[in-house]
Amino acid sequence: MYTVTVRDHFMIAHSFRGEAFGPAQRLHGATYVVDVEFRRPDLDDNGMVVDIGRAGEVLRTIVGGLNYRNLDDEPAFKGRNTTTEFLARLLHGRIASSIERGDLGPAARAIESVRVTLHESHLASASFDGRVIAG
Amino acid sequence: MYTVTVRDHFMIAHSFRGEAFGPAQRLHGATYVVDVEFRRPDLDDNGMVVDIGRAGEVLRTIVGGLNYRNLDDEPAFKGRNTTTEFLARLLHGRIASSIERGDLGPAARAIESVRVTLHESHLASASFDGRVIAG
Amino acid sequence: MYTVTVRDHFMIAHSFRGEAFGPAQRLHGATYVVDVEFRRPDLDDNGMVVDIGRAGEVLRTIVGGLNYRNLDDEPAFKGRNTTTEFLARLLHGRIASSIERGDLGPAARAIESVRVTLHESHLASASFDGRVIAG
Amino acid sequence: MYTVTVRDHFMIAHSFRGEAFGPAQRLHGATYVVDVEFRRPDLDDNGMVVDIGRAGEVLRTIVGGLNYRNLDDEPAFKGRNTTTEFLARLLHGRIASSIERGDLGPAARAIESVRVTLHESHLASASFDGRVIAG
Amino acid sequence: MYTVTVRDHFMIAHSFRGEAFGPAQRLHGATYVVDVEFRRPDLDDNGMVVDIGRAGEVLRTIVGGLNYRNLDDEPAFKGRNTTTEFLARLLHGRIASSIERGDLGPAARAIESVRVTLHESHLASASFDGRVIAG
Amino acid sequence: MYTVTVRDHFMIAHSFRGEAFGPAQRLHGATYVVDVEFRRPDLDDNGMVVDIGRAGEVLRTIVGGLNYRNLDDEPAFKGRNTTTEFLARLLHGRIASSIERGDLGPAARAIESVRVTLHESHLASASFDGRVIAG
Repeated sequence: MYTVTVRDHFMIAHSFRGEAFGPAQRLHGATYVVDVEFRRPDLDDNGMVVDIGRAGEVLRTIVGGLNYRNLDDEPAFKGRNTTTEFLARLLHGRIASSIERGDLGPAARAIESVRVTLHESHLASASFDGRVIAG
Repeated sequence: MYTVTVRDHFMIAHSFRGEAFGPAQRLHGATYVVDVEFRRPDLDDNGMVVDIGRAGEVLRTIVGGLNYRNLDDEPAFKGRNTTTEFLARLLHGRIASSIERGDLGPAARAIESVRVTLHESHLASASFDGRVIAG
Repeated sequence: MYTVTVRDHFMIAHSFRGEAFGPAQRLHGATYVVDVEFRRPDLDDNGMVVDIGRAGEVLRTIVGGLNYRNLDDEPAFKGRNTTTEFLARLLHGRIASSIERGDLGPAARAIESVRVTLHESHLASASFDGRVIAG
Repeated sequence: MYTVTVRDHFMIAHSFRGEAFGPAQRLHGATYVVDVEFRRPDLDDNGMVVDIGRAGEVLRTIVGGLNYRNLDDEPAFKGRNTTTEFLARLLHGRIASSIERGDLGPAARAIESVRVTLHESHLASASFDGRVIAG
Repeated sequence: MYTVTVRDHFMIAHSFRGEAFGPAQRLHGATYVVDVEFRRPDLDDNGMVVDIGRAGEVLRTIVGGLNYRNLDDEPAFKGRNTTTEFLARLLHGRIASSIERGDLGPAARAIESVRVTLHESHLASASFDGRVIAG
Repeated sequence: MYTVTVRDHFMIAHSFRGEAFGPAQRLHGATYVVDVEFRRPDLDDNGMVVDIGRAGEVLRTIVGGLNYRNLDDEPAFKGRNTTTEFLARLLHGRIASSIERGDLGPAARAIESVRVTLHESHLASASFDGRVIAG
């Protein structure tokens, strides 16, 4: 299995609902450093899993849709706890859609699975890892 | 698959027995920076794999049981080489027990597997990855 | 010159005022990973710049005063842009006061200067470096 | 499953053929920081996955065969794009051969799979992960 | 003293002349991860050392002038060893000129000194640190 | 001012005397990741602060003198607390002597100062920074 991983980041405000969150029930925020790993069993004709430059641009666009926002105000997240795990899954879905739409080029449709990891500090991270619908 | 990873560290002395260890047969020591990755297929009702704060406290307690010790003097390790791999497995067992006992909360019993990685320097690490007995 | 550096972090929400800030004028947030470097020309009787454990506790208390907060709601920051630079200076002042009060022990009053660095992502950081009033 | 990972690096020049590579079609270069992860289900009699010192030496020899070279001039790579992915696979094959030859000791023949990751910058990496022919 | 630091990278080929360079006399290459630290004694009216976003863009443009090139073919470096130290100094000069030209905004002319650090691997780096002509 | 920095590490056992050290009075150990920064105002004829390869070898020899040892058994440290700060100073002295003896080559005698930093974990480090007797 081959992989390629690219990194970017975004900075948001949010709060959590539920006693389990303790002081994180207050409005606070986070920098999320995001690693996206693309996987496929064979390389394309250029010898690539995915064009690293293009993957970086797609990731920049996707995190740009969350960057500098208060997630508590986003209608899409109404009534949801935007935990690091939840956001990893959200980004996974958006990257899978990008692959399907061909934003990463036609050859990238051979990508079989993707892992999205969000580092919230030097001590903690969360990820979602799952298949994408290969072309 | 969702994951959450938390980090802590401990500092110990030990020595190894066997020619393969060369100068590491002498009494020396190490700082182990520990990453524990918890995995499960679905999130709990709070949208979490595990409460990151609670996971950090459990990890702190577990590494606290080894911190600032000479492992050669610990009866539990008598006749064993406390290699990085061995210690990764040891911590995995203790974390699995914590999950079973409910130290990480009842919802954390849905955790299916755990990976424990010990970084012994900027150049080398070891890990143990295995299932835990899900509730 | 001797130094000791300890690390901790905090997570806050805030917004900025002024066109220069572009989209960061919206309410967003950040994880700040904080490094505090203590400096003095000679070691104390224990061979230390400062007790690393105690320095870590003092830093934890100080960042705890900001952690999980919306800085826009803090009266102390009314009308101020809580930039990374500003926060580095703020923490520097609080650490200097801790040293003066003796929170780091009497020997730590020989610390001459402190550098506080806040990493806001894997790409950017800011710091404040200045003297503290040595006892 | 147990793992051990060791790190080294090499510095090469190369160029790529194909429009997808944009400016990387020009002769340029890279530092590749290499992580090799060895995996096996049980430890050997010394309590090891592999002798970390020996693994480091084997890796040093293998990356030494590429270090300070222009890959465009290497007959072995004629007509190939020496992408990060391609090089990860190449190193994987050379490490697998080392294990088979016994360069890592007879016990290391129980290693079942290896992952080779090449970090080309603080933002991007590629890997190849696959089985090795266990003894 | 306040600082702000931003990071970017570039990838080049080059070779060195002189026996001291050993195998690095062959054409090879490097990824340089670049940190630029800007320093000034007081903050501007926005509470900033320099606009981090703008500093990042200026750095991107400057490293873009070297990225994906064979430095041996650049007339500007004819007869020079483009060591990491040399390149740190080169980038320092270009950043100083950017500040003078006002590319970082008028307030950035109060920057007094800049440190440019180039990381060539996980084991080695070089820097140039010097004053810039403050406006 | 130009700098070059190289990294290596060593692993030791030791214990501390004095109540301030708490549980670290017990025999324990540490991995120290060491960064040595060499500084001089001008480059040598090769465009270098110091030959990075040669600096790495000198550092390897120096840390090799401490590696895999119990510092409590070393006569040279009798009655001393081998704190991270103390060890940073010790290594500084040994590197200064190496420069004077010409181990780093005659041109390296122009090095004016050296900073030695020892990272004892992902959270704490100590350093000694001082002049060396330039040739």
